[in-house]
Amino acid sequence: MKQDVGRDDSKISVMTDVWAELKELRDMVTQQKIDLSISKNKIEKLEKERTENPKVAFSVGLSNAGTVGPIPADMTLRFSKVLSNVGQAYHTDRGVFLAPVRGVYYFRFTAFSNTANRGMGAILYHNSKKVGWITNHNNHDVGYATVSNGFVLELEQGDAVYLALPTNFVLYDDPTTRSVFSGFLIFPQ
Amino acid sequence: MKQDVGRDDSKISVMTDVWAELKELRDMVTQQKIDLSISKNKIEKLEKERTENPKVAFSVGLSNAGTVGPIPADMTLRFSKVLSNVGQAYHTDRGVFLAPVRGVYYFRFTAFSNTANRGMGAILYHNSKKVGWITNHNNHDVGYATVSNGFVLELEQGDAVYLALPTNFVLYDDPTTRSVFSGFLIFPQ
Amino acid sequence: MKQDVGRDDSKISVMTDVWAELKELRDMVTQQKIDLSISKNKIEKLEKERTENPKVAFSVGLSNAGTVGPIPADMTLRFSKVLSNVGQAYHTDRGVFLAPVRGVYYFRFTAFSNTANRGMGAILYHNSKKVGWITNHNNHDVGYATVSNGFVLELEQGDAVYLALPTNFVLYDDPTTRSVFSGFLIFPQ
Repeated sequence: MKQDVGRDDSKISVMTDVWAELKELRDMVTQQKIDLSISKNKIEKLEKERTENPKVAFSVGLSNAGTVGPIPADMTLRFSKVLSNVGQAYHTDRGVFLAPVRGVYYFRFTAFSNTANRGMGAILYHNSKKVGWITNHNNHDVGYATVSNGFVLELEQGDAVYLALPTNFVLYDDPTTRSVFSGFLIFPQ
Repeated sequence: MKQDVGRDDSKISVMTDVWAELKELRDMVTQQKIDLSISKNKIEKLEKERTENPKVAFSVGLSNAGTVGPIPADMTLRFSKVLSNVGQAYHTDRGVFLAPVRGVYYFRFTAFSNTANRGMGAILYHNSKKVGWITNHNNHDVGYATVSNGFVLELEQGDAVYLALPTNFVLYDDPTTRSVFSGFLIFPQ
Repeated sequence: MKQDVGRDDSKISVMTDVWAELKELRDMVTQQKIDLSISKNKIEKLEKERTENPKVAFSVGLSNAGTVGPIPADMTLRFSKVLSNVGQAYHTDRGVFLAPVRGVYYFRFTAFSNTANRGMGAILYHNSKKVGWITNHNNHDVGYATVSNGFVLELEQGDAVYLALPTNFVLYDDPTTRSVFSGFLIFPQ
């Protein structure tokens, strides 16, 4: 009996060890389940940020047709020569960039004219707001005028950015591509 | 007894299986603990890089007050019209951009003048070093002068970048925003 | 005997519980192994994207030697003053930027001249294609001419981008750094 009891004791002791081991393992696995869940959420967040960072960048030349303007009122400039348009956010049919996501964008342009004694330049619009002008009076008897400007703008999704030609001003472009509008997303917000 | 012994043998055998199973499970859990720890470190590194990639971009217009200068010594240009200033790294009170992190930045500016027969333009400073000039002599009887330049600079955290007006030069800006200083972080280092 | 049987029953029941517990634990661990493997793949993908996003940005000044040109044929402009060249993609020996990865890049330049009554400016090349010109005729008796332009270009790995001086044109640069070529990777593709 004693031996038996002893055996039983040892059996109980073994079972106690098994249950202790099982408890420890379950605790480890449960903790890992929590850790893994936290990691999965963090990965998902990182992946979301990556997909929310769309690729948006464009560069468009004004025209191959020579002088644009003058006209009796401000006119949206339709840049028709697509040098690049990743994300298709610049719409050549309307001459308007539409922000595909909320974010901070960079826009820059160079305007060129070879019409003497006449104003040249452009105005950058953000929706209906004039962000900045850059103009010159091409008061050369012979020669060219060029102006450039650049802006960092915070845009809401769907906001429009475009260039307009001021009343009575002219610009010029041809296949050598001298009047150019470019922009890209710096980072989403 | 034989049966008992048999039963004991089977019990020992069962217990051996349990311990083998427990050992295998513990090995799996231990390995997963290592794998999970490696994954957690990698996620932390990816998250750190994300937070170390701060959002820094600005665009500031010079003034609404008309002509700035001439003055008898180089002067820091305080661009007072904030078009955007994500990360608040451009300080309008001092006219200085202070790099919030070590990294590679892009800076560009357009300077405008409508004062005939006088020098115009600006010098870009990185701390006390003159990075680049861009100037013109507005030798038109009527008309405007505009100049632009742009630079990619490697900055240490806290480095200052600003534009200065050269001695005896002038610039002009008004609510149409023609003289503009812009910049953004391209990537941290 | 009854007690023995009872004991045996309870032992069997205990063993059943142990095996049930073991099975449950093994299922949990196996599921975690799958989850961990998925997470590891996602992390690897995020890390790969990070390393595939190389740091490429440069800014180079033309020269400290004064006037460049005129020459009787278009000439690649070797910008010899390195202001920054992260990724070493601009090669000063050839005057050529070579794209280290397929992607979308931004390039901009400012060209300066102080030679009166002579053409000035530059042409941006993408491999053998002329992307855009920007020129002026410096028809001032006294004074300077500056032009700037900027382009967003989609490049294949190994594509070359460089500036050329048109036939009979001139540019000028000196230690004040007025003629500058800059570029950076916006995003890889």
